[in-house]
Amino acid sequence: MKVIHYSAAEAKVFNADPAKGVTGRVVIGQADGAANFCMRIFELSPDGHTPKHSHSWEHEIFVHAGTGAVWRDGAWVEIARGSVIFVPGNEEHQLKNTGTEVLTFVCLIPSGVEEI
Amino acid sequence: MKVIHYSAAEAKVFNADPAKGVTGRVVIGQADGAANFCMRIFELSPDGHTPKHSHSWEHEIFVHAGTGAVWRDGAWVEIARGSVIFVPGNEEHQLKNTGTEVLTFVCLIPSGVEEI
Repeated sequence: MKVIHYSAAEAKVFNADPAKGVTGRVVIGQADGAANFCMRIFELSPDGHTPKHSHSWEHEIFVHAGTGAVWRDGAWVEIARGSVIFVPGNEEHQLKNTGTEVLTFVCLIPSGVEEI
Repeated sequence: MKVIHYSAAEAKVFNADPAKGVTGRVVIGQADGAANFCMRIFELSPDGHTPKHSHSWEHEIFVHAGTGAVWRDGAWVEIARGSVIFVPGNEEHQLKNTGTEVLTFVCLIPSGVEEI
């Protein structure tokens, strides 16, 4: 059993277009023997956003802290601490921070795709 | 795309031995078309705990709020907001609240087992 604080995992920074102010960490993945799905934690700075994109695999997302919005069907939907987002495969999506504190969310993907 | 606050999902209460003070919600599952893994949110009251048990499937857990402990290899390991726990299949585990506020955590399981 692995027990860590998420901040102890290696951080990867994405700060080049089409991402901005994104820090990501794989906290449970193939290296831990997790064969079915992978947990990542992302932090978006107050002006940060993920790329607007789509791909064949799904996301299961839980918002841990902060406030922001998610792009759904051509419009922004507000999210905050405690929000849950299911992004089915092939659906366009983007997350952005709309507040003054860091937006932190848990984002899971199935195994077999790039972990981060 | 599904966007909800986790508290909007149907709550199921587990308050009979070997569980105590546990409220669980399936927030992303088969009903949403999630074919690979399932997200649940659990809240443990200040005196609450999950059963001490093991099963063939894994858990991927993120602690959203509160303080507690997880049973690992015959001893309690402290957990708190931001802790990540990977419980491999067939490993005995239990979570308990050791604080005065609700212990809230996200717990994911692979598809194909009972969702809650």
